[in-house]
Amino acid sequence: MLADSSATAVTLTLSCPDRPGIVHAVTGALAAADGNIDESAQYGSEVTGRFFMRVDAHVGAGLDALRDRLAPVVEQFAMDLELFPTGSPTRTLIMVSTEAHCLNDLLFRQRAGLLPIEIPVIVSNHTDLAPLAAFYGVDFVHVPVTAATKDAAEDRLRELVAEHDVDLVVLARYMQILSDRLCADLAGRAINIHHSFLPSFKGARPYAQAHQRGVKLIGATAHYVTADLDEGPIIEQDVVRVQHHHAAADLVAMGRDVETRTLRQAVAWHAEHRVLLDSHRTIVFP
Amino acid sequence: MLADSSATAVTLTLSCPDRPGIVHAVTGALAAADGNIDESAQYGSEVTGRFFMRVDAHVGAGLDALRDRLAPVVEQFAMDLELFPTGSPTRTLIMVSTEAHCLNDLLFRQRAGLLPIEIPVIVSNHTDLAPLAAFYGVDFVHVPVTAATKDAAEDRLRELVAEHDVDLVVLARYMQILSDRLCADLAGRAINIHHSFLPSFKGARPYAQAHQRGVKLIGATAHYVTADLDEGPIIEQDVVRVQHHHAAADLVAMGRDVETRTLRQAVAWHAEHRVLLDSHRTIVFP
Amino acid sequence: MLADSSATAVTLTLSCPDRPGIVHAVTGALAAADGNIDESAQYGSEVTGRFFMRVDAHVGAGLDALRDRLAPVVEQFAMDLELFPTGSPTRTLIMVSTEAHCLNDLLFRQRAGLLPIEIPVIVSNHTDLAPLAAFYGVDFVHVPVTAATKDAAEDRLRELVAEHDVDLVVLARYMQILSDRLCADLAGRAINIHHSFLPSFKGARPYAQAHQRGVKLIGATAHYVTADLDEGPIIEQDVVRVQHHHAAADLVAMGRDVETRTLRQAVAWHAEHRVLLDSHRTIVFP
Amino acid sequence: MLADSSATAVTLTLSCPDRPGIVHAVTGALAAADGNIDESAQYGSEVTGRFFMRVDAHVGAGLDALRDRLAPVVEQFAMDLELFPTGSPTRTLIMVSTEAHCLNDLLFRQRAGLLPIEIPVIVSNHTDLAPLAAFYGVDFVHVPVTAATKDAAEDRLRELVAEHDVDLVVLARYMQILSDRLCADLAGRAINIHHSFLPSFKGARPYAQAHQRGVKLIGATAHYVTADLDEGPIIEQDVVRVQHHHAAADLVAMGRDVETRTLRQAVAWHAEHRVLLDSHRTIVFP
Repeated sequence: MLADSSATAVTLTLSCPDRPGIVHAVTGALAAADGNIDESAQYGSEVTGRFFMRVDAHVGAGLDALRDRLAPVVEQFAMDLELFPTGSPTRTLIMVSTEAHCLNDLLFRQRAGLLPIEIPVIVSNHTDLAPLAAFYGVDFVHVPVTAATKDAAEDRLRELVAEHDVDLVVLARYMQILSDRLCADLAGRAINIHHSFLPSFKGARPYAQAHQRGVKLIGATAHYVTADLDEGPIIEQDVVRVQHHHAAADLVAMGRDVETRTLRQAVAWHAEHRVLLDSHRTIVFP
Repeated sequence: MLADSSATAVTLTLSCPDRPGIVHAVTGALAAADGNIDESAQYGSEVTGRFFMRVDAHVGAGLDALRDRLAPVVEQFAMDLELFPTGSPTRTLIMVSTEAHCLNDLLFRQRAGLLPIEIPVIVSNHTDLAPLAAFYGVDFVHVPVTAATKDAAEDRLRELVAEHDVDLVVLARYMQILSDRLCADLAGRAINIHHSFLPSFKGARPYAQAHQRGVKLIGATAHYVTADLDEGPIIEQDVVRVQHHHAAADLVAMGRDVETRTLRQAVAWHAEHRVLLDSHRTIVFP
Repeated sequence: MLADSSATAVTLTLSCPDRPGIVHAVTGALAAADGNIDESAQYGSEVTGRFFMRVDAHVGAGLDALRDRLAPVVEQFAMDLELFPTGSPTRTLIMVSTEAHCLNDLLFRQRAGLLPIEIPVIVSNHTDLAPLAAFYGVDFVHVPVTAATKDAAEDRLRELVAEHDVDLVVLARYMQILSDRLCADLAGRAINIHHSFLPSFKGARPYAQAHQRGVKLIGATAHYVTADLDEGPIIEQDVVRVQHHHAAADLVAMGRDVETRTLRQAVAWHAEHRVLLDSHRTIVFP
Repeated sequence: MLADSSATAVTLTLSCPDRPGIVHAVTGALAAADGNIDESAQYGSEVTGRFFMRVDAHVGAGLDALRDRLAPVVEQFAMDLELFPTGSPTRTLIMVSTEAHCLNDLLFRQRAGLLPIEIPVIVSNHTDLAPLAAFYGVDFVHVPVTAATKDAAEDRLRELVAEHDVDLVVLARYMQILSDRLCADLAGRAINIHHSFLPSFKGARPYAQAHQRGVKLIGATAHYVTADLDEGPIIEQDVVRVQHHHAAADLVAMGRDVETRTLRQAVAWHAEHRVLLDSHRTIVFP
């Protein structure tokens, strides 16, 4: 806020075992690097005994000097600490099948400057969405998946992740289940949108189930991908009210809007480094 | 609206097998009884093939004359039809255990004229809420329930329902499971509030489960009571957003508000004759 | 619902002075044309003394036969009545300036089959959004507007409305004020999205005003265009929660989402013939 | 979290001119007093150049020792700093006229342990709500107000505030306007609930105005009382959706629910020391 304009805007996140002195030590390093806090939040988890912190600051001495100042603190407190230039884009690979709504929204918002991500490549097991990718000038790679080619397809994905220096994989209605091994490789770096208000209606046909049950709200859930299908740490959920005259097909259409905004929010929070993992739950500093 | 002030305000609901001519026939009887429609809604269910209708009207010839005019229509179309003086209070027996929030809200709103119900009697398996009942001048009957006395307790409830001419039983956080036989007796006339967003987290400890799972929204569900526990036709659901720093105890506290407003809405709609049963789903004309 | 598959799906809307017998007369014509009601709603306005009705039906004898049957009813009750093949697309001209969010959403949803409109042409006083129109294969007409050319520009718009047989004009963040005469010409056929929760913060810079005032919710309002700027009949409003750390620029970004979904909803309801004008208020049968 | 059970739970709030080193200095004092942070948030206001901080901590050395450690920090940074035992009740005087809904909710929640306040006394210019106060065992003081007695009535209120050691005055639908002098005396310590979504529909009849205008959402606003009527710093706002068939009287009834939950939330946040004043806006750390 009050930092002179030459200061570097920095976002810092950390988690570590909880004990006294964490914030004092971190802000000491910040002060030593001519840092001033714009906004910050901290939280100590009763469940896991870990402490979480996120800081937006302006740092006069620059990011590298701050990293040096923090090094002994990181070691002393056994921190998982990350430092980013504030607003630097998260390199994001998007996986899709045939439904366009989530992809269209992410591309539009990235282009409009509303989402701090770069999208170097889109991967799909179908070709339907290639024209949309082309309109936004994003590489589109068709990687078909069959039972026989699944391993090869996942290897291709790994190559693309490496080649494009990808930080985040977003499954934007990608209708294939990832292998346990791939889930493990992408732990904490892959977000899926599930088209139900989990844990209700797991599986492939949630809207049909919701209609059958006669619920009055339907929802969507954005979560980190884990080998336990539909059981990963939840980042965001949202709902929309439905009425008796809505058929299952209407729920599908209405659900698309909820899926779109739930995934968008989860990706935005992740890309702004607002989501931290606390075992199988998430800490979100919104 | 335009009816002269001597006309009787009437609310009509019906359901019957769907076929052409239903609305024409009903509105013909209305016209013949000097009726004018204030507001009405109709719906044909694709799932069950039944037709549903609700009408608010002013009837110059009065309710009994309208009933006579409707009699042949009811027979011709095999209708389940009900007629009420608009706004006439639904006689409501409330069952509670120890938690006061739902009861307090229902009593307050009934007294304030915000809910078209009368509450002749409150039944509880505990005595904690007797003073609250006394403040509102409502009879409070303590009916303890143990495994040994359960049948007798339910018989006592049946007596109270009969004695007080009860139209509706509301389980306002009543923590006993009703027998299958009592559920059958009260079919379509008993509303329960479940403290989760069904079908998630069935059972007795939904908030602990929700906290454990790390969901970002918690909810409540008001439904008609059936022998299938937590599976009755849903009338209303609502949710509230929770955050990582909310402990399970916080969810319980926040959930109380959602329970309160969800149950209140369901009772209001039922008492205004806005809820019709379509097999195991509900039609709600709000 | 139960109509045989050869029946025509029809949507009917009407308004007329309220008096007994309206629904009976209309449903009589429906029955005479082998019609069966799928869903319907009626409302008598206390404020204006007018009666409103909307029907979705299947009609065995077809739309023209139904129109014939209704003719004497229309005359008898002095009805404004409209009949449409259910789901037939509303021909929609979209006007934009430079902001893409509303246009992108409407084009995407039209293409995805989520909005019963056709978009024959997009008109803009800028060229920024021409590529987006081109991607969706929609004609894009650049009509610059200056103080000197305003009349000519509005004449050009009238030509385009006539030429493309346009039913509805949507001002999707079009940043020019229409003349009183054009507003009158388009009465009930032009929808604007205003970027505030009207009547708060009228005028051109609502987000700056909202930030300055420290409100905790910001909103958007979709309304029919009238000569009274920002005073037309409201179709839909929505809000989003903001926090102290959101700068005015954040409100602009968050507001875009609310504008988008508020306009989308208003256009959908209009195109589904769910919105009827009751003087300067709207009746919405959702 | 990890603090031993003998540690004191403390809530700290501060604001001061923004400059580097604030958090480091405060957490240094915390560490020196054997403190451990449970949860904390900070924010630097771009508008006013002030910095805000709130901390929940456990302090081994106790609250007084912490206060001593903080004294030089407070002086160095020119802080407005407050320290409270976490959860210690805020002594709250409630003012009402005749409408019960807000008072009933606050009393119920206070009694249920859901709101960290004590209510030593209720003041009213009417006697209607005396029985409700009596049920909860709270002193009820009738202070009639006429043009002639207004000054005396406000003096009586000041006496009651002093006598009962009151921290917070809540105007729970109190229908008298406070004098400028009293507003000044109570600056930052008096919360009013206004029955509209400010700045729309200021004044005494917001629901009639809202109905007349045909809005689709109505709301309520909880704000600190200032001499500028309906212009005080906003703490919380909320809305509810209305439909064409709701008459002005329905809006009044629906508005009561929004007023109730908006005021309740504002009082809860204030009593938990989550609201800080940033000139005419509020910082809320929820």
